[in-house]
Amino acid sequence: MARRRPGQGKLTSPRQESDEVRVLSGVDPETGCTLGTPIAMMVGNTDARSHHYDELAELYRPSHADYTYDARYGLRARAGGGRASARETVGRVAAGAIAEDLLAVIHHIDIVAWVDEVAGIVATVDAEGVTRELVDASPVRCPDTAAAGPMIAAIDDARRDGDTVGGVVRCVARGVPPGWGAPVFDKLTADLAKAMMSLPASRGFEVGDGFASTRLRGSQHNDPFAVRDDGRIYTTTNHSGGIQGGISNGETLRLAVAFKPVATLFRPQHTVTRDRQPVVFQAKGRHDPCVLPRAVPMVEAMAALVLCDHMLRARLARVADLPR
Amino acid sequence: MARRRPGQGKLTSPRQESDEVRVLSGVDPETGCTLGTPIAMMVGNTDARSHHYDELAELYRPSHADYTYDARYGLRARAGGGRASARETVGRVAAGAIAEDLLAVIHHIDIVAWVDEVAGIVATVDAEGVTRELVDASPVRCPDTAAAGPMIAAIDDARRDGDTVGGVVRCVARGVPPGWGAPVFDKLTADLAKAMMSLPASRGFEVGDGFASTRLRGSQHNDPFAVRDDGRIYTTTNHSGGIQGGISNGETLRLAVAFKPVATLFRPQHTVTRDRQPVVFQAKGRHDPCVLPRAVPMVEAMAALVLCDHMLRARLARVADLPR
Amino acid sequence: MARRRPGQGKLTSPRQESDEVRVLSGVDPETGCTLGTPIAMMVGNTDARSHHYDELAELYRPSHADYTYDARYGLRARAGGGRASARETVGRVAAGAIAEDLLAVIHHIDIVAWVDEVAGIVATVDAEGVTRELVDASPVRCPDTAAAGPMIAAIDDARRDGDTVGGVVRCVARGVPPGWGAPVFDKLTADLAKAMMSLPASRGFEVGDGFASTRLRGSQHNDPFAVRDDGRIYTTTNHSGGIQGGISNGETLRLAVAFKPVATLFRPQHTVTRDRQPVVFQAKGRHDPCVLPRAVPMVEAMAALVLCDHMLRARLARVADLPR
Amino acid sequence: MARRRPGQGKLTSPRQESDEVRVLSGVDPETGCTLGTPIAMMVGNTDARSHHYDELAELYRPSHADYTYDARYGLRARAGGGRASARETVGRVAAGAIAEDLLAVIHHIDIVAWVDEVAGIVATVDAEGVTRELVDASPVRCPDTAAAGPMIAAIDDARRDGDTVGGVVRCVARGVPPGWGAPVFDKLTADLAKAMMSLPASRGFEVGDGFASTRLRGSQHNDPFAVRDDGRIYTTTNHSGGIQGGISNGETLRLAVAFKPVATLFRPQHTVTRDRQPVVFQAKGRHDPCVLPRAVPMVEAMAALVLCDHMLRARLARVADLPR
Repeated sequence: MARRRPGQGKLTSPRQESDEVRVLSGVDPETGCTLGTPIAMMVGNTDARSHHYDELAELYRPSHADYTYDARYGLRARAGGGRASARETVGRVAAGAIAEDLLAVIHHIDIVAWVDEVAGIVATVDAEGVTRELVDASPVRCPDTAAAGPMIAAIDDARRDGDTVGGVVRCVARGVPPGWGAPVFDKLTADLAKAMMSLPASRGFEVGDGFASTRLRGSQHNDPFAVRDDGRIYTTTNHSGGIQGGISNGETLRLAVAFKPVATLFRPQHTVTRDRQPVVFQAKGRHDPCVLPRAVPMVEAMAALVLCDHMLRARLARVADLPR
Repeated sequence: MARRRPGQGKLTSPRQESDEVRVLSGVDPETGCTLGTPIAMMVGNTDARSHHYDELAELYRPSHADYTYDARYGLRARAGGGRASARETVGRVAAGAIAEDLLAVIHHIDIVAWVDEVAGIVATVDAEGVTRELVDASPVRCPDTAAAGPMIAAIDDARRDGDTVGGVVRCVARGVPPGWGAPVFDKLTADLAKAMMSLPASRGFEVGDGFASTRLRGSQHNDPFAVRDDGRIYTTTNHSGGIQGGISNGETLRLAVAFKPVATLFRPQHTVTRDRQPVVFQAKGRHDPCVLPRAVPMVEAMAALVLCDHMLRARLARVADLPR
Repeated sequence: MARRRPGQGKLTSPRQESDEVRVLSGVDPETGCTLGTPIAMMVGNTDARSHHYDELAELYRPSHADYTYDARYGLRARAGGGRASARETVGRVAAGAIAEDLLAVIHHIDIVAWVDEVAGIVATVDAEGVTRELVDASPVRCPDTAAAGPMIAAIDDARRDGDTVGGVVRCVARGVPPGWGAPVFDKLTADLAKAMMSLPASRGFEVGDGFASTRLRGSQHNDPFAVRDDGRIYTTTNHSGGIQGGISNGETLRLAVAFKPVATLFRPQHTVTRDRQPVVFQAKGRHDPCVLPRAVPMVEAMAALVLCDHMLRARLARVADLPR
Repeated sequence: MARRRPGQGKLTSPRQESDEVRVLSGVDPETGCTLGTPIAMMVGNTDARSHHYDELAELYRPSHADYTYDARYGLRARAGGGRASARETVGRVAAGAIAEDLLAVIHHIDIVAWVDEVAGIVATVDAEGVTRELVDASPVRCPDTAAAGPMIAAIDDARRDGDTVGGVVRCVARGVPPGWGAPVFDKLTADLAKAMMSLPASRGFEVGDGFASTRLRGSQHNDPFAVRDDGRIYTTTNHSGGIQGGISNGETLRLAVAFKPVATLFRPQHTVTRDRQPVVFQAKGRHDPCVLPRAVPMVEAMAALVLCDHMLRARLARVADLPR
């Protein structure tokens, strides 16, 4: 939660949201243990300033959800973008923290995401060695120190221009056992794609070599199987990113999510109002010039939630092995 | 169905599957009208030759789902890859044809996909003007004739080498009204991503400018709103690909799907058997050197199914407007 | 909410729970209108006295859920029965109030439940004429004044003996249009049954003539169709209780729910502890000798929720009639 | 399947439906083992005579689903009642057979249903001792030989009058372990109720003492806990029918389903046509005078399906105990 919240430094929004979580149910207050009850958590918003949004009530901010929500519901919430605000991701990160714990305790699964690209500046990161400590050592959450500096400079440049930048978050999950993911529709690839493409500002998703795989031949892309000394099967390369036929194969899971540049600009933009009048609009308020650093824990949370779900489904796929 | 089936030419598998659809329920045989009953369709497999798969029963083909299915279920179907075979997409295309009809009849929505890239050769296609006729005029289903020739040559080259190639399918949906897509988890982006990333061999997905959007600044990427003479709101550019905040904005929906090179090679590959023995394996049978031309109707079908679902959900979002 | 809460008189538990509802989302605080966002409501518990439950932590109260929760989860919440407490129905009644409003505004549907039987004393109530005012005029919520007196006496008798009684709630929904309910699994009968049989202490459910219908011949039970002056079709009798083939037929919907006698007795009972020791147990605390009066709004709420769901599904069953 | 099909004797419909099941997927034809794939089965209808239904296309049979289907969909299938025909239960019984197998193999659960009441004639049956052999020894599937004779006579009487009768099926499931069923909405009671009340002609449902429990005091109805020599907890009575707080307690599960008299009469009835004309209608064709004997395997199948579902859910409720 602390890694997601705004106010972490000059790269992110100066809003001060403490994001304190209140657990409403599911955990025994005496023992701290779960009870089997759904775990409900609530995060209040202590620094909302809805008057900042007053003038927005009647106009459609470009590339925001104002117009599309109006089209869908015939009205929309005034303050702060409602469910279209990235503020809703606070709930994903809270839930993801529990999922991460389960995956770590039961399977020693380790999920790490980082900022891999900002404004066209691409990092070089070792998928097997990267840790959250290495990631968080950089204010832009890029563990490649050679790339982090230029990324920060690019974000600062954009902010000075009242402009914004986008980028790519990459994520690995190490230790996922083979056999997770369902055939046909609920492939692990498919459920991860849905989870990531539901994040605000996401525009693209890939697993393994992704779009770059389309430029390889099959003989370059195929991952040969081999056997370890302990008898476990592995692949000698991992172009597939740990998923074959939609099901995990035991190798490190690799994925990436593309985030567009933030839509809120601190410079004049042409747009229209609800009643079809053209206006020029310039944003006020407190907004990130680049969502990438804060998107890192969101991507980790979504990966954890999907994996946790498939951990349970994988067990049900082998009913005969279940305890009686 | 005819566009999906193998045996369409030298670019695709020579298997001869007639893919005749038998409608089991949901349609009145006398009137040809739907009855409200779920429509069940069955497609038999008249050209299966399972002895082709006999030697595969004990080994794990590289980058196929043999190993991962074994890991999941403790066993797997012998013949033809089971549900991991792209043959299952016949059902998607059959269902998609009905969804396309509904979208066309109710909203005049028009869905067109094409092969946009093969083996690194990128086409240039006009998203507003492209039609299925233009697409199908090319055996590789690429409407850019300048690119289609080199694509076909690249596929032929790969086949001669016993190798395979991948590529990118792009798809547009024209005429989608504003307001389709749900907030938070079931964004139109998210549901399209899941649908496409459930297709066999898919490795990446993007909407609008996708990964390329990450290299634009907000001021370049934002789509300004304006008003048409008839009072309808539109955007003067369409970097968003018709979706903002996860909800359609009335502009042309644009998406792309990356397909890896086919895993079945007609050259020797190293792998292991179920009982951990290393073997050298060379495929026999009838397989596509490139799935892209046949993936075109699959992408269209999945787009139609997702849009159809959200057409209904959009209606429910405005209960008060529903007939009584 | 006021009709469900305890502390309404000597027939119900003396617990004083104010049951104030806090709306967390979904309603615009300025306009009071819904926003399309899910409506989240929270009801705090201001009069919980969990020390009353301390001695229960280790023993299994007869015919309570203590033992079965332990069997399911390996542990259970100490205070107040957790989700097995009828206190959870506060959420159903809050949600049901919104569903009732929708049904009333859109279709003029009118839902009325009443206590029809207590301890074997059966009321005679006119399903077409009964109103909530008539029901609430009686402290036992039985609109048949001849039966209400003996019912109250039976409850008082039981309380004096430290004992409890059960009974039957009947419910009508007037104005449900024909065509609600889905074939096969989600019949209106089926969904109403599930909703009612999920209420705490429910033991039986019936629609129309229910169990009594089994003693009629088809010629006595069938409801002949006829036509009104305005051209609308109706049935001249209503043994079916407004549902035929699982779908509403426009007649008054009639159902009943059987509630067992309350399990909490103020007299000694034999039972065992978690560690298998026999004990004699006598309840303390504040409990209803009879849940029936408070069950009335619960049954109405569940009926409203099921009908609201099928109102939407019925619209989707006629896609072609939906606005575009 | 053989127990459900018509043509079993003079008590049931003389239609000759062989009800042969064709397994389409999910089972390896070589080994006969399941593959993890969904098991699809198909049963053709070899004795349909749709001309029998021709004259029905325009009129609404009383207490059938003709009118309500028209109201829902604006049209309906002509032949044989479509999904409102009890013929659809063939699929339930086929699926139930697999569920029964799983329950028997994994937990030695034993499900037996019988006809407990026909036309007001009530049987006396020992819930612990009854077997399917005892049930099937009687053509009316009532194991109480003293009651079976009068039941058969009542059915014969009704048939001679062109009339029909209803009744009650009771069912037990022995060996269900404690802990099955979910809190709040998906109680075992609730899911069983939905399953049974989705059966054609069902009008009522109860568990344990059901409606009769409402006439007991709590001190009579509560089931005291005690401990067996082997340390297992049990209840010395079983008024609860094996379910407490919606979750199984290890005792024999007891439930009942009320079936109304069959709606198809071989005597004149008043009704109306689609275009609002009054007509007199007399059924032809082949119909059961009493569905009860054939409902026995349907009730068993639905019980098995619900229990199987909750078997899996119970496992997921104890994640920490699952194999890794």
